[in-house]
Amino acid sequence: MSLAQETAAALQKIFNDRFTTSRGICAEHGTDISHFEPQPPDAVVFPETTEEVRAAVKACAATGTPIVPYGAGTSLEGNIHALKGGVTFDLSRMDKIFSVNQEDLDVVVQPGVRRVQLNEYLRDTGLFFPIDPGADATLGGMASTRASGTNAVRYGTMKENVLSLEVVTPSGEIVRTSRRARKSSAGYDLTRLYVGSEGTLGVITEVTLKLYGIPETILSAVCAFDTFEGAIQSVIETIQIGVPLARIEFLDEDTIKAVNHVSKLSLAEKPTLFLEFHGTAHAVDEQVKTAKEIMTANSGKNFQWAEKAEERTALWQARHDAALSISAYATGTRQWWTDVCVPISKLAACIAETKKDIRATGLFAPMLGHVGDGNFHLGICAKDGDEEEFKKADALHHRLIQRAVSMDGTSTGEHGIGRGKIEYLEEELGAAVPIMRSVKRALDPENIMNPGKILKPLQ
Amino acid sequence: MSLAQETAAALQKIFNDRFTTSRGICAEHGTDISHFEPQPPDAVVFPETTEEVRAAVKACAATGTPIVPYGAGTSLEGNIHALKGGVTFDLSRMDKIFSVNQEDLDVVVQPGVRRVQLNEYLRDTGLFFPIDPGADATLGGMASTRASGTNAVRYGTMKENVLSLEVVTPSGEIVRTSRRARKSSAGYDLTRLYVGSEGTLGVITEVTLKLYGIPETILSAVCAFDTFEGAIQSVIETIQIGVPLARIEFLDEDTIKAVNHVSKLSLAEKPTLFLEFHGTAHAVDEQVKTAKEIMTANSGKNFQWAEKAEERTALWQARHDAALSISAYATGTRQWWTDVCVPISKLAACIAETKKDIRATGLFAPMLGHVGDGNFHLGICAKDGDEEEFKKADALHHRLIQRAVSMDGTSTGEHGIGRGKIEYLEEELGAAVPIMRSVKRALDPENIMNPGKILKPLQ
Repeated sequence: MSLAQETAAALQKIFNDRFTTSRGICAEHGTDISHFEPQPPDAVVFPETTEEVRAAVKACAATGTPIVPYGAGTSLEGNIHALKGGVTFDLSRMDKIFSVNQEDLDVVVQPGVRRVQLNEYLRDTGLFFPIDPGADATLGGMASTRASGTNAVRYGTMKENVLSLEVVTPSGEIVRTSRRARKSSAGYDLTRLYVGSEGTLGVITEVTLKLYGIPETILSAVCAFDTFEGAIQSVIETIQIGVPLARIEFLDEDTIKAVNHVSKLSLAEKPTLFLEFHGTAHAVDEQVKTAKEIMTANSGKNFQWAEKAEERTALWQARHDAALSISAYATGTRQWWTDVCVPISKLAACIAETKKDIRATGLFAPMLGHVGDGNFHLGICAKDGDEEEFKKADALHHRLIQRAVSMDGTSTGEHGIGRGKIEYLEEELGAAVPIMRSVKRALDPENIMNPGKILKPLQ
Repeated sequence: MSLAQETAAALQKIFNDRFTTSRGICAEHGTDISHFEPQPPDAVVFPETTEEVRAAVKACAATGTPIVPYGAGTSLEGNIHALKGGVTFDLSRMDKIFSVNQEDLDVVVQPGVRRVQLNEYLRDTGLFFPIDPGADATLGGMASTRASGTNAVRYGTMKENVLSLEVVTPSGEIVRTSRRARKSSAGYDLTRLYVGSEGTLGVITEVTLKLYGIPETILSAVCAFDTFEGAIQSVIETIQIGVPLARIEFLDEDTIKAVNHVSKLSLAEKPTLFLEFHGTAHAVDEQVKTAKEIMTANSGKNFQWAEKAEERTALWQARHDAALSISAYATGTRQWWTDVCVPISKLAACIAETKKDIRATGLFAPMLGHVGDGNFHLGICAKDGDEEEFKKADALHHRLIQRAVSMDGTSTGEHGIGRGKIEYLEEELGAAVPIMRSVKRALDPENIMNPGKILKPLQ
């Protein structure tokens, strides 16, 4: 594939040196850390304004050129691969924070603002934005994949925290999906339709997000268990009794092993929970008391606690470093990152069967996750270049998804469908998929928006 | 308009005596408490199962017969009026509660289950469902209008609390929008697309809802203020400081007057806040302390408190009775109920201008609302049969919406667009409306689902 000459000329005119067909830059924009082969676009543009996005969309639409929106490139299902070539819209230069509305607890940002950048900017306001996928993703990208992270059990996912979007449609219209009011019953919920649509319906050019007051007290804790059953049972009981945990994260013994090795830590190599409590001093005391009772009754040991910011960071280091540590520890492997989410009543069974399955394959596949939501990840490691092992990883992955779906769960809790889980979407939602296809056809009739993602080719 | 003979025959065959063209029953199903002229359907059916809904949809679709889904008929924007005749699907007999999943904090119900019925059913489980629009609506209806109520400031609206839906599409497909996992990134968020679509995209036949543990301590309070500014300022400060109020409701002096008169109470006829605190005993103590300080500093007086269930109910009686009291008090009037929602930073200004505007018209138009969300209602009363007054009410309503939208608010916080606010939707969301229209055309190409609601006629 190559770019139509008139499109190239039009983009050149709009962007000057912010339009490129450089092989290196295209290759970079077609590469992620997924297990898929990279797929570079034919060109990359770096818009700075909504108007530039609109003009570029029109230039592409005129020749049916595919458009791939791109934030930080941290998604995990090949979401940014240019399967049919075309132009990648790298939105990282749209990184302005327009307005923090302190009274309304919201903020209006361009899509290229990263989550860490936002929270640094907010620091002096006493407010924060809680959604934290592993990587320092852009907020536009996070909206696109309906991302969540460690705080979702308390604060929800991007679905609950995007108040409004500005989107450039495939025909170059600029659409605002909602006003800034906290709630509305005005027509179809287009905000939620674009959240999680992975760039297949339009280009997000502005995001309005909910903010929260930084809690008076934040307490972190780590607790190891003899068995993963004890850890998971603690999660279930803590959630059910209504302790409003801010975070409750599970790392299995393999993950801890990788972290110990890479970060030179000496954590007990056991199933471990990382917790965080938010609230007033009194409220946190109460939460801790209840949670500790439950964990102790389920064989929880080696409690460690931290309240000061630096101590909390140190305590949570293992959790923060987990994915990178696994990558670094499993040298010489190709990693297949995936996630599923099941109703919490099925979580223990799903994890038990998955652990057994992993053991049977002989693969190194550490597990970690946001277990308060019933969501967990596997990092399946297959020897580089070993096709047999890669097939084993594929089969293990396949069985994991089937298992989660058979337990009324989903094939992806937070990574999205991308190019990797299209067939599983059919399995998971059946008759709903043709409805999604109708929506796609209605909103992007020429199929120029990130084609080949979420849904099978339309024709 | 009248029903095609083959449709009547097909429906008769499916429903026997649960199919009717009785004038009385049709009239009843085309009448609500909105200010619009009633619009009866040509027939009413009373399905009991999803399969019956599917068969009936197919029978209607075969002749392009309009379908109006109907729950309890408590919506306020003419949402259930059969503008183009056709068949009303009265879903009130689909009132089964299928399964309470206590570990997962969710419940699966038929759409005709009412909110009070659900909470009665849940009583022994220690769980509850918090969304409470004024009327005892059905859960299918509440999903359809994206309803909220007094608890939304803490627990969210139907948008946040519907986990999954089963929907019969206009072509008679049965679609499940999501699995029962707490979160998912699997494809377009069809759940949120159907929530708030007011029956214009399909018939909801099953609803999976989130549940919550009944808090250890519930404390209710009432507090009167010399000025509405004091009341609203208290709301703003309490929300900003992060007190996790379960409810914070505003009733103006006219509303209190109506309640005093009808319910023989003797509340101070002043701007009043009704509050509720949920949590552990300690947490509630802390919340109350902070809230009381803020309210006192803003001229809050006449505090009343209640913790026991019956006392709380008595204390909140004025709030619960408010809408009915206004109707009863303003005898001989036609009432125009409306709601808007603005960012909370604009709430004081919006209320001040609206109060001034009401005074200038000379109309009786009590105000009450879920001010923690920036959402308030007016019950505009115009003398029955007085066209001049009705025009004044219309103009007042018009200015209210314009004011809210100009303040980055919405034309409806929780009632929906129905037939009443179609023109305002255009004003509020502009370029987003054609997108909604595309979605409608894609999912209901023959425009048989509740035609004439939310969007202008398609052709």
